[in-house]
Amino acid sequence: MGNTFGKIFRLTTFGESHGKAIGGIIDGCPSGIKIDIDFIQSQLERRKPGQSKITTQRKESDKVKLLSGVFEGVSTGTPIGFVFKNEDAKSKDYFHLKDIFRPSHADFTYQKKYGLRDYRGGGRTSARETANWVVAGSLAQQILSEIGVSINAYVSSVGSIRLNKCYKNIDLSKIDENIVRCPDSSIAKKMIELVEKIKKQGDTIGGEITCVAKGVPAGWGEPVFEKLHAIIGKAMLSINAVHGYKYGFDGLDISSAKGSEVNDVILDIDGTTKTNFSGGITGGLSNGNDIYCEVTFKPVSTILQTQKSINEKGEEVEFKAKGRHDACVVPRAVPVVESMMALSLVDAYLKSKTNKI
Amino acid sequence: MGNTFGKIFRLTTFGESHGKAIGGIIDGCPSGIKIDIDFIQSQLERRKPGQSKITTQRKESDKVKLLSGVFEGVSTGTPIGFVFKNEDAKSKDYFHLKDIFRPSHADFTYQKKYGLRDYRGGGRTSARETANWVVAGSLAQQILSEIGVSINAYVSSVGSIRLNKCYKNIDLSKIDENIVRCPDSSIAKKMIELVEKIKKQGDTIGGEITCVAKGVPAGWGEPVFEKLHAIIGKAMLSINAVHGYKYGFDGLDISSAKGSEVNDVILDIDGTTKTNFSGGITGGLSNGNDIYCEVTFKPVSTILQTQKSINEKGEEVEFKAKGRHDACVVPRAVPVVESMMALSLVDAYLKSKTNKI
Amino acid sequence: MGNTFGKIFRLTTFGESHGKAIGGIIDGCPSGIKIDIDFIQSQLERRKPGQSKITTQRKESDKVKLLSGVFEGVSTGTPIGFVFKNEDAKSKDYFHLKDIFRPSHADFTYQKKYGLRDYRGGGRTSARETANWVVAGSLAQQILSEIGVSINAYVSSVGSIRLNKCYKNIDLSKIDENIVRCPDSSIAKKMIELVEKIKKQGDTIGGEITCVAKGVPAGWGEPVFEKLHAIIGKAMLSINAVHGYKYGFDGLDISSAKGSEVNDVILDIDGTTKTNFSGGITGGLSNGNDIYCEVTFKPVSTILQTQKSINEKGEEVEFKAKGRHDACVVPRAVPVVESMMALSLVDAYLKSKTNKI
Amino acid sequence: MGNTFGKIFRLTTFGESHGKAIGGIIDGCPSGIKIDIDFIQSQLERRKPGQSKITTQRKESDKVKLLSGVFEGVSTGTPIGFVFKNEDAKSKDYFHLKDIFRPSHADFTYQKKYGLRDYRGGGRTSARETANWVVAGSLAQQILSEIGVSINAYVSSVGSIRLNKCYKNIDLSKIDENIVRCPDSSIAKKMIELVEKIKKQGDTIGGEITCVAKGVPAGWGEPVFEKLHAIIGKAMLSINAVHGYKYGFDGLDISSAKGSEVNDVILDIDGTTKTNFSGGITGGLSNGNDIYCEVTFKPVSTILQTQKSINEKGEEVEFKAKGRHDACVVPRAVPVVESMMALSLVDAYLKSKTNKI
Repeated sequence: MGNTFGKIFRLTTFGESHGKAIGGIIDGCPSGIKIDIDFIQSQLERRKPGQSKITTQRKESDKVKLLSGVFEGVSTGTPIGFVFKNEDAKSKDYFHLKDIFRPSHADFTYQKKYGLRDYRGGGRTSARETANWVVAGSLAQQILSEIGVSINAYVSSVGSIRLNKCYKNIDLSKIDENIVRCPDSSIAKKMIELVEKIKKQGDTIGGEITCVAKGVPAGWGEPVFEKLHAIIGKAMLSINAVHGYKYGFDGLDISSAKGSEVNDVILDIDGTTKTNFSGGITGGLSNGNDIYCEVTFKPVSTILQTQKSINEKGEEVEFKAKGRHDACVVPRAVPVVESMMALSLVDAYLKSKTNKI
Repeated sequence: MGNTFGKIFRLTTFGESHGKAIGGIIDGCPSGIKIDIDFIQSQLERRKPGQSKITTQRKESDKVKLLSGVFEGVSTGTPIGFVFKNEDAKSKDYFHLKDIFRPSHADFTYQKKYGLRDYRGGGRTSARETANWVVAGSLAQQILSEIGVSINAYVSSVGSIRLNKCYKNIDLSKIDENIVRCPDSSIAKKMIELVEKIKKQGDTIGGEITCVAKGVPAGWGEPVFEKLHAIIGKAMLSINAVHGYKYGFDGLDISSAKGSEVNDVILDIDGTTKTNFSGGITGGLSNGNDIYCEVTFKPVSTILQTQKSINEKGEEVEFKAKGRHDACVVPRAVPVVESMMALSLVDAYLKSKTNKI
Repeated sequence: MGNTFGKIFRLTTFGESHGKAIGGIIDGCPSGIKIDIDFIQSQLERRKPGQSKITTQRKESDKVKLLSGVFEGVSTGTPIGFVFKNEDAKSKDYFHLKDIFRPSHADFTYQKKYGLRDYRGGGRTSARETANWVVAGSLAQQILSEIGVSINAYVSSVGSIRLNKCYKNIDLSKIDENIVRCPDSSIAKKMIELVEKIKKQGDTIGGEITCVAKGVPAGWGEPVFEKLHAIIGKAMLSINAVHGYKYGFDGLDISSAKGSEVNDVILDIDGTTKTNFSGGITGGLSNGNDIYCEVTFKPVSTILQTQKSINEKGEEVEFKAKGRHDACVVPRAVPVVESMMALSLVDAYLKSKTNKI
Repeated sequence: MGNTFGKIFRLTTFGESHGKAIGGIIDGCPSGIKIDIDFIQSQLERRKPGQSKITTQRKESDKVKLLSGVFEGVSTGTPIGFVFKNEDAKSKDYFHLKDIFRPSHADFTYQKKYGLRDYRGGGRTSARETANWVVAGSLAQQILSEIGVSINAYVSSVGSIRLNKCYKNIDLSKIDENIVRCPDSSIAKKMIELVEKIKKQGDTIGGEITCVAKGVPAGWGEPVFEKLHAIIGKAMLSINAVHGYKYGFDGLDISSAKGSEVNDVILDIDGTTKTNFSGGITGGLSNGNDIYCEVTFKPVSTILQTQKSINEKGEEVEFKAKGRHDACVVPRAVPVVESMMALSLVDAYLKSKTNKI
């Protein structure tokens, strides 16, 4: 269980980091969508390992292959199956970890849940899985784009270096002007320096990503247990290493605000509000204003330092990870965050079509 | 859609704040559970309006009535239907708001989604709905308790007054020793004073709740899209006024930590870790240590001050809310947070039974 | 599990025959539907016990009470909760059966599944549950009626007395002209005589119901595992005592037909076919022609004769059922069949709105 | 939607007959199952085109490739992705049908639902899809086999040639002794002759398959809307060309039976019954006796004769199908029926683990 996202536009995935392939099935994609494979591939490039000096050097071409559901370049409404071959998996980097439960990794928990595990490259727990999400998410972005919704994410902090500006005061077209994907060149520079420093130490560092969706009309989302912000939150919390999520409030400390300060006065019949502390969502439904949220990543657990742990027999061991790893995942996670936002919104959009007869 | 929580232990609810009744159906409750109706009722008392000077003065006896699924005091495995009658609804407090879209309320978004709305008492969007969750959640707590899992939540901040201690250094038995449900009497006193002050101003204030689950064995949760922390996150984000969620990291700033500082060294074959920055969950699965998270509430939107907004015709209006409202919801939200944790965990527990044949 | 029907228009139910109440929650009903409570009640009257000399004499007023989701007579889009009180339950008729596993009843299987059971009146397994379905189903019929779809079911056989005519040659307005609900007065007369005879013997007899839906446009249903006829089939097979289902083929023996004889030639761009062996569904999707199917009921298991069985200790026992029971359920099952057809179709209709953007 | 089967053991599929590949993802397979790829492949051989003179001569090697979820020959509990390449697709056989809505095919209904369609080889509507089901179904059979459940299906009629014997009086080991898969050699011979005759006429013929599951313990299944026989019924009705389903009653006419004749007297505490008219299921739950049902197939719609229809412009046309087709599908459908039974049962089995704590 747990390998499907969405109710109507549904992504189901499979695959281990060092297995034969990873892939997925997108069910519930409306028919008649022109598939822009170049856009999908461009989002995959942004997620790809080896794209810059601050990411892992593992090489994967990450060329997705669509197997069904598309005819003459257009979605047919039937499931879209897709695969990626695994190419540059160096499983032997993991042989020495075969019996070791790495700290803050899922080795121990998978072993407890399933009684066995594929230890190579983290198996199913590897963030390689998120390539599947980007395929479906960028398709979702295309659909949303046709109805006027755009989605952008950017790195708003790495370690304690933080972009202290509201997204409204940021030029979102500059996100990809640097390798850390922070749309402020001077802060980006500091972030890159920090990642390089941390990398040299064989250590890792966390960060934050802000995501903005513009053009969502009022009324998407479902009350009570599928509130739009809760669906988005669950989507973001599915991303490897994410430990926190908040929406709205624009940098303000949510819990210490007063109602009189943060109530968003409605200005017109389209729902435009004077301020947007609500983050574009009220009562779990989109309110017509920009949706925005912040996602917090912990430092990744694989560090290139000697660590203590235990093995399967319960014996204390020391080990050191080999392989090629990210010192900071947030630059590569930007298209993943966009994809999870898109998957959440496209599903909300399709559901909203059933509100009335 | 959106009125069901859970996959195996499933709660489906109905009801508007000022309608005839609210209630729900619990499907998937295992058979043979002795129903401790007193415990359910005691949790409802903690959530009830009118319980202290710092909560709304609306009076509801909030006596739940179980209609099915229980025979001779024991769950039969069939659905448990339950209802609460609405008693002290003063709908006329809302007549003057009939055509007004209140700021940061769901009036506007429901109108956009459904084309009409029950304006009385917030209708379906009222936090009165959470009484239903407490019924199912406290039943879930009973089941969990039989397998050694306990759940406790407490208020960790009101406005900028914050309990800056890790839950491990707190005596959780003291949570209910004061009306704000903060288990530190001197901080609680300050919180109560703040709420009273805010209340006098006709204003509202946010806060935070920390929730701890002890005794969860390793291996609960599902990978990828139903990670345990993501399910809990979605559950918490369903609670009215919640805008943020994080798990683990114990007060530390997640994004600025280094991997070498926060990796949890595993000490023994039960998975006990030296530190618990992971918050009891690794790779989306429980790891055998305490699960804990923090939930952030914005100030409630109903303030007793004159506010500007628009009406259904798009005309600018001024209005002032009548009725009885909470200046700060966190004290009453404590059992709701516990309930949502319990619903998340009991479902994960039941799913875990299908991992192996 | 198993107490919810539908994906978008969802009915979840609860209740035991001799418990406090039965009821349900309808989630996903579109907003803006004028609720015709008289129609709902009229369908309940057709299902009600005690309605004629050939049904059980148990008296239930079967007045449904809507608790939520309706405001000023119109659906709001939020869940519609409803209940029926149980009134004429004579539980002591069942005390002597407390420890006995009645033949072809679910006493034994519930005991095995759950380890205990509510033996009174069959508990959850009683067909009293179907009153809940009629509430949701007749609401579904109203929605369908607004978009031009009508549904009619009638008794096509009782025992070996069979109405050997295609539905097209039958005046469906005559269904309720007699108490057996067979729209041919002379055959109805024979059916009634047979039921009376069987009843006098303390025995029971099976029968068949044909159901016809007119006005369904082409393109409803989902391919592969949610084919429209499979969803309808599952719905019908959920009805107590149903053992068989077929659709199309109009009395013809399906398996001995040749392709050249039963292919339906398409005549025009609306999909009108010369013949309708397909039963209005091709490839799992509605094709624009009338949908029709046949549902086969076994004789009910409660007979008023002495029977052998075993008790909970495994000892052989003889027993005789008391209470008031139906000798033949098909007359009362007619609105239940219509309801299950309506629930299947309304869900397919709502799903069909998500096919295209 | 509609491309997923099951709740816990879930199969999601993709693929068109003449696309690049077909395949699927099995989610929820318990860990620790030794994968017997030879058994899977042997079931695929029984379904494969070109296996005998009475099936279509299309050649597909139908070698399935497992891509994930299996490590060192054992299931890991993570999703099992699999694919089949399409090899012998002769799409040009379909070019002349590009604009034609073939009678009793899904061309018209897919066009109406989706606005376009992949016309090559029937696209998604082709029974080639069922190869995916056999992969998952034979894996399900392996799991069931480990807990003592066996499943066998056989052809019980072709046209009006019928095996008039209860399954109990049949040697199920003889099913594969002839190419029509009827375990009675003299009747099989007549069936084969009939298929050959029909084939020469360029026509098609229907048939029936009986399926038996032995060893299912009492208590599997879910009440009300997921009754075991209803789940199995839906599974069977998902198979291409199936128009009817019944369970139990052993050849007896269900609707004309009397309760006193067909109530199954329980003999012992394991639930063994004297007769088995119930077909092994009572009140929607398995009762410990053999489960059996009968599935009715219409003749396939593709006949090699000139037929009338209309084209996309609504003009009357005459056409004749080319390509390689089955005159009677039941021999090849035997493993498909077994697979759908296995998928239904394995899901019921896993659900049953959550009945009690």
